[in-house]
Amino acid sequence: MLQLNENFLNLNQNYLFSEIAKRIAEYTKANPDKTVIRLGIGDVTKPLTNKTIEALKEGVSHMSSADTFRGYGPEQGYEFLRNAVVDYYHRNGASIEADEVFISDGAKSDTGNITDLFGPDNDVLIPDPVYPVYMDSNTMSGRNITFIDSNKDNNFTPMPYDGLKADIIYICSPNNPTGASYTRSQLKEWVDFAIVNKSIILFDAAYECFIEEDIYPHSIFEIEGARQCAIEFCSLSKTAGFTGTRCGYTIIPKELEFKAGNGENVSVNAMWNRRQSTKFNGVPYIVQYAAAATLSEEGIAECKENINYYKENAKLIAGCFDERNIKYFGGINSPYIWFECPNNMYSWDFFDYMLNEIQVVGTPGAGFGKNGDNFFRLTAFGSRENTIEAVRRINGMLDKM
Amino acid sequence: MLQLNENFLNLNQNYLFSEIAKRIAEYTKANPDKTVIRLGIGDVTKPLTNKTIEALKEGVSHMSSADTFRGYGPEQGYEFLRNAVVDYYHRNGASIEADEVFISDGAKSDTGNITDLFGPDNDVLIPDPVYPVYMDSNTMSGRNITFIDSNKDNNFTPMPYDGLKADIIYICSPNNPTGASYTRSQLKEWVDFAIVNKSIILFDAAYECFIEEDIYPHSIFEIEGARQCAIEFCSLSKTAGFTGTRCGYTIIPKELEFKAGNGENVSVNAMWNRRQSTKFNGVPYIVQYAAAATLSEEGIAECKENINYYKENAKLIAGCFDERNIKYFGGINSPYIWFECPNNMYSWDFFDYMLNEIQVVGTPGAGFGKNGDNFFRLTAFGSRENTIEAVRRINGMLDKM
Repeated sequence: MLQLNENFLNLNQNYLFSEIAKRIAEYTKANPDKTVIRLGIGDVTKPLTNKTIEALKEGVSHMSSADTFRGYGPEQGYEFLRNAVVDYYHRNGASIEADEVFISDGAKSDTGNITDLFGPDNDVLIPDPVYPVYMDSNTMSGRNITFIDSNKDNNFTPMPYDGLKADIIYICSPNNPTGASYTRSQLKEWVDFAIVNKSIILFDAAYECFIEEDIYPHSIFEIEGARQCAIEFCSLSKTAGFTGTRCGYTIIPKELEFKAGNGENVSVNAMWNRRQSTKFNGVPYIVQYAAAATLSEEGIAECKENINYYKENAKLIAGCFDERNIKYFGGINSPYIWFECPNNMYSWDFFDYMLNEIQVVGTPGAGFGKNGDNFFRLTAFGSRENTIEAVRRINGMLDKM
Repeated sequence: MLQLNENFLNLNQNYLFSEIAKRIAEYTKANPDKTVIRLGIGDVTKPLTNKTIEALKEGVSHMSSADTFRGYGPEQGYEFLRNAVVDYYHRNGASIEADEVFISDGAKSDTGNITDLFGPDNDVLIPDPVYPVYMDSNTMSGRNITFIDSNKDNNFTPMPYDGLKADIIYICSPNNPTGASYTRSQLKEWVDFAIVNKSIILFDAAYECFIEEDIYPHSIFEIEGARQCAIEFCSLSKTAGFTGTRCGYTIIPKELEFKAGNGENVSVNAMWNRRQSTKFNGVPYIVQYAAAATLSEEGIAECKENINYYKENAKLIAGCFDERNIKYFGGINSPYIWFECPNNMYSWDFFDYMLNEIQVVGTPGAGFGKNGDNFFRLTAFGSRENTIEAVRRINGMLDKM
């Protein structure tokens, strides 16, 4: 008789976004004349850049003729794209090599699938609040999860402490949902902890393109020692608006090795290579061709225009809280503004309050963990017009509170 | 200290295709004047059809304007594509519903990742010879694998037998590498076995588009009872030349349930939905848009022209063996011709013999399992010109043997 993986029964039902959708639908039904502005979702709204579109068109044209048609590609990604990622990293100040780059359909797939490489008995350290994938993918494989408090007291950048036990450490910086980032020296402490404890750091750099202050590294591989203890996940989703075009990359240094029970040193790069060769068949050639053009200097320059547009939105939103000394995180180096709900309101109550009073929608921090109970996330990914109108409404609301 | 998933240490190093590449490279270096024809690889060579290309262009154009831009899509695939798959199935005579269809980047990913849903203690039944992914993905998760002999005596379509124990049953029909297909009545026996034993059948239908004889079903869901015991994997790779464009689909009936240890009936459809929502972020919009156009009646009519071209190649190759009463499988209902090596040669020896004598390359059956030791695979995916020349050479070689 088939046995299911019963760890699935231990998953929390995550109702966050469906609950939000439900509440908006109810409100809209009861108030058909009101215009709701959504600053809740972490998805881009600007179309792909010209350089990306031109390369997509070329890629499509290659697929229409037998001479230039591409069938199965390498599971690890085409050499031209792996080299483009290496070059992008070099320009950002981190040194990696092409055979340390694995192209994928996105950071979500890779952060989820990477758990295939680890045994069931590891202690997994996850910050609270957190992007739910880290938690759910480990719950599915039955691992013991420990949460580390990420809160106002530690500026949402929790640090290692005496007696901390962690074999697998998840770090997302700039962070989703809190917008907070680790400095170089803070990350160095985590790297040192991981080396001493023979742990692995799974570093999610999905929002690195929003960093503008030099104290925050774009890549963990800017930190000395990281090549012995870290894997980095990143993607073009936020960098280049690829949320619906799907292309990410995972960097696994060749030095990253752990000792197996038989005493043998095992290369994590080789394990991931085998995992991907077995359970993955590469990213569409068309997408890879466009991704390489996007990561070129010219391509990134175009992307930066979009990122700057979103950053300007972030500054507009953050302005509401600056003026009133309301504590917030992000807003700079991040597309997220994570602020303390006024009057110490519970974040779901504040959600309802905002929806009813000013018809602006965000994401209640409670949906990301207990340390988010009194925090609220707004995103900078809307249009300028909607953002300006939302800011006007938020200012009016805050004046009354 | 981090513990690795040490099941990876139990994986066989699969040197099949790298060994083939090495032998060809050595031969070519020593014989630079000879033209080697490759009929070894299971990859298509004809470009995407007009309808697919036009839809790709439209999809790209949607991504270039804010009004039509698409960001994150549903992890399960867009409704328009799920409906197109349903319609394609209906036209082929199987009844499924849109929420039973999960769009993915290909059947290889899904056949690999589906193992996430099952516990470690299941008995896994895999035919020998076999497509290595089934074996490797289960070895990675530490499951007990039993092989069922697939050989000349059972026409490479092994059947359940008394005392057979199997919780997870892999069936690929039409088969890679053997080209053999199960008839409706044979599949019914497997479905009956699975229902009685509360097993699950993982049915790989990747080559269904090559079926032309009505006794072979295109989908396991043409078989009564299959909705209670089977998952089906398929893709556009062979149907529409999407090997480098990446779009597949997995069908999980809503009736498919197994009892958990706590007595609760658990829906496999819901489990896969949760798995994909956690560890996958959907297929590129552009690709999904094109896939829907491809699966339309007009789109498939164009694809059939390419498939008929490959089938014609298959018949030309099979002709060599028909004329001489050499036993082979496939050649019809399949792009593969799987034949017994002449003079009972070991398949690697025959590989070297063919390469040296006539410079035609195929795949030694030994690379797929012990029952392939004396068999050899040729594929119909080459150009007509190369296939005709290869057939001329093979005929000459066989005349001398």
